[in-house]
This record gives sequence, structure tokens and C-alpha cells, in this order.
Amino acid sequence: MTTTTRYAFDTDTASTALGEHEYAIDLSPRWITGAGTANGGYLLACCLRALSRQIPQPDLLSASAHYLRPGGTGPARIRTETARVGRRTGTGAATLLREDKEIVRVLATFTDLASAQGRTHESGEPPRLPPPDRCVDPLAGISAASATIAARVEFRMAEVPGFFRGAPGGTTALDFWLRFADGREPDPIALALLVDSAAPAVFDLGVAGSSTVELTVHIRRRPAPGWLACRVRTAHLVNGFHEEDFDIWDSTGALVAQSRQLAILL
Amino acid sequence: MTTTTRYAFDTDTASTALGEHEYAIDLSPRWITGAGTANGGYLLACCLRALSRQIPQPDLLSASAHYLRPGGTGPARIRTETARVGRRTGTGAATLLREDKEIVRVLATFTDLASAQGRTHESGEPPRLPPPDRCVDPLAGISAASATIAARVEFRMAEVPGFFRGAPGGTTALDFWLRFADGREPDPIALALLVDSAAPAVFDLGVAGSSTVELTVHIRRRPAPGWLACRVRTAHLVNGFHEEDFDIWDSTGALVAQSRQLAILL
Repeated sequence: MTTTTRYAFDTDTASTALGEHEYAIDLSPRWITGAGTANGGYLLACCLRALSRQIPQPDLLSASAHYLRPGGTGPARIRTETARVGRRTGTGAATLLREDKEIVRVLATFTDLASAQGRTHESGEPPRLPPPDRCVDPLAGISAASATIAARVEFRMAEVPGFFRGAPGGTTALDFWLRFADGREPDPIALALLVDSAAPAVFDLGVAGSSTVELTVHIRRRPAPGWLACRVRTAHLVNGFHEEDFDIWDSTGALVAQSRQLAILL
Repeated sequence: MTTTTRYAFDTDTASTALGEHEYAIDLSPRWITGAGTANGGYLLACCLRALSRQIPQPDLLSASAHYLRPGGTGPARIRTETARVGRRTGTGAATLLREDKEIVRVLATFTDLASAQGRTHESGEPPRLPPPDRCVDPLAGISAASATIAARVEFRMAEVPGFFRGAPGGTTALDFWLRFADGREPDPIALALLVDSAAPAVFDLGVAGSSTVELTVHIRRRPAPGWLACRVRTAHLVNGFHEEDFDIWDSTGALVAQSRQLAILL
């Protein structure tokens, strides 16, 4: 059931068709979080790759995931459904189950981003960061458990935020560079994983952990190869619930993904 | 099939149970847009009210809608499904159909906002607006068609933006007050309609119209009665696709809803 490819992302998000709308997948321990559960972005990418087989449009445009239970590793099923395939967009649903219990439900719409035509007018600016080779690796000298998502993704930051050093600084905003550690270049479904691949911004408030309730990501362009510039912000932690906005620009300075998740402190 | 109540919102979003997971609704022409199609926030609110009957948690927390076809008026069906009811949250799915064609698919998670416990830490600020009685009504002197959503909602602005006067000003950011015109006070599901009730911010670029692909709304608190302060922003119109962020603060200055939609210019 496992397909081995050159890159962890491709190997670990591949599923095997059991029927027209059902897929088997072996959830990899390589994407677990510090809390020991499967990363939400990883589970979303698994669902999107299965669903994309049934939708003719080549690019993820928008995906919404509601997380129902903590995700573990090992055998799981993905059930998919095509809602509508139109000329310009195709939409479907996917549900990931472990031991017949629903872990995450997804709705996603695909399009052909290369054929999108229409006006462009942008006022948003990419993060102002030194080049990656003049930034620091916040995990340098920290022995990241090799089985966690922290070993799958590389970060470069202008300076290391307080919480990485055990001294939370009280900010909930951070800009940084990010890429897959094994050299896998980004694509739209990979971006849906990457928007959930960093430590939550609220960690700098000294919180112990956070669990995603809902995550939506919009893909705005096919990303160019290379480092991705990321901006993460939480403006409202309210009675334990917080949003996290995570936007990604590619190496050419073009906005490629916008995401928001609603999460609850553990 | 129609239940008449004091307020248009309650009358027009009510559905009749046909079975455990199927509801009949008569989509009202009172919520159509200038383009003559049913407002997306109205369709979402109809789905959420039907789904809420099956979920024990009293408050909408997070809803994601993917729009598949333009919505019309008249008889429609809503099919619902409960995905998981846990101790703290309950999640379900809803699909609205007209003539057996899917119009919108929704995933939604409910909770009891009054029992939410945990830290609060907010850096976001509400819009700085003059009080509503010192603002102007942008629709004053404009004969809004009484059958459209523009007659269901009242706005107050510090000044009237260019596009209301036929002279688009090129900004894609606006702050304003908003409330139901008939005095209906806001609640979480009403907020899910209201985040889609204003003219798109991109209208000030001189565009003719915009159609929602996906809309997600997070409810952060139960809103207090009175005027709602709104902030709407579009930062990235890319090849005809644009996001719109629409945040709402209640009359006490507390953030009550955050939404983002991805839409495509017509």
C-alpha cells in the first residue's frame, strides 16, 4: 500500500484506490506534531490528493477542513464525493477515518490556475526578511525528534523568537522563510500542508499547545520553486479560542497562499 | 411551509423537516443581490439553521461554504448530516439543492460560547468610526429595489465611498456600521449572513460584480444588541480571483465574527 518516492511529502500522502470513492492510506509517523498526533495540514493534504483524482481541474483553489478527532498514525480510509464539476471549477468532499471514526471532513474546490484570466490589483506586501542565507535556523542546536514534522520542514528567521528559547516574548506575529527539508518544491496541495506546519503563533504567549477546529486555505498562484516567505498572525485569543492567519509568498515575491485556522488551546 | 415571524431573517431562513435529515425551504426573494441571485450569506444561514436542529451545542462556532451554482428563489431542499457530536463541539454537513442540483455545500461546527473558558489576549482593534448617528447612510437618496438584500440591512459610514456615487475610488478597504433594517438583533447564525451582506470591497475598483467560491466565518463571541462595526478588506485581486476579509465587532467593541471569502469577478 505504500508508494515510495523521492520526497517524504509524495510518499506519505499517497493513497491506494479501493473503489471509485474510497482510498486506503497508511498515515506516516513522519508528520506527527510535538503532541504526538498527526499534523492537521498533513491529514488535509492526504484528503486533497485523494480527492484530486476525481476532479479534472489540476490545481487546488480552496480547501476547508473541520477537525473532529485527534489524528494518529497507521492505516486509515479516505472517502470522497464529487459535488460538481463545472467548466471552470470542480468541487468535492472528503472524509478521513481511522477505525471507522471520522477524523477530518474536507470540502475543496479545484481550478486551472494557469488559465485564470482577469484583473490583478494587489495592495498586500510580502514580509520584509533578510535573504535566507543571512537568517538563522531557529531549530539549530535543538535536537528535534526526527520522527516529527519539525524534521520535514526547514525554517529561517531574522531572529529566533522567545518561545524557541523557552522564554515566550508575548508576541503573536512572526515572519520567516520555510521549505521542505528534503528539497521537495512547493505546489498547491503542498501549500495546504505548509500553512499548518509551523509552531502556532500563540506559543509565544507561553501556551502549551493548540488544536485546530477549522482550517481554510486559498491558493492564489502556482508557487515558484525555492524558499517561501511566510507571515503568521494571531490577533484574537478569546476564552481559549484563537484564529491564526498564515500567508505564503513564493521566491519571486508573489502571494501564493492565504490561510486562516480557528484553534483551541489545549 | 412558510413560518411568519416578526423579522425577515427568522421568517426567511426557517425550513420544514421532511425527515430526520431533509428539510424543505422556500427561498425568499427578499435576499437577492443586485445580480438577481440569492445572497450567499442568506443561503448559508438557511443551511446553518437546518443543521443546528441536529447539533446539541447552541452556538455556531465555525462554518465553511463552497458555492457550486448561482442560487435562485423558490422551493429548495436542505440535506443534513451529523459528523460528530462531542462534549465541547458538534460538527455536521449540509447541502442546499434546487431542482435536485447542488447550490451550496456547508461544513459547520457548533459549541456553547457561554461556557468557553481559557485565556483572552487580543491585539486587534475595532474600526474607528464616528457614532452611527453622526455617520451617513450611503443608500440615502438611492432607490434600492425593495426586494433585494440592500433593503434588509442598514449601513452607516463616515463618508460615502466613491462607488456608491458611480465614481470608484480605487480603495478596497472600508469600515462601517451595519444592522438589520427591521430591528432584528444579531446572533451567531445571523452574523454568518451579515458577513456577506455588503457590496464587495472590489466594487471600488470599478468591477461589475463578484461571485463567491468559498466563504468561512468564525464566531468569536455572542454579539451584544445594537449596531455592528465592520471592517472589510481585499488585499489581493489576482487574475480575477480575490479574497475579502470581513470582521465584525459588536456595540460593546468586542470582536464577534471573522470571515474570509474567495470570490471571482463576473
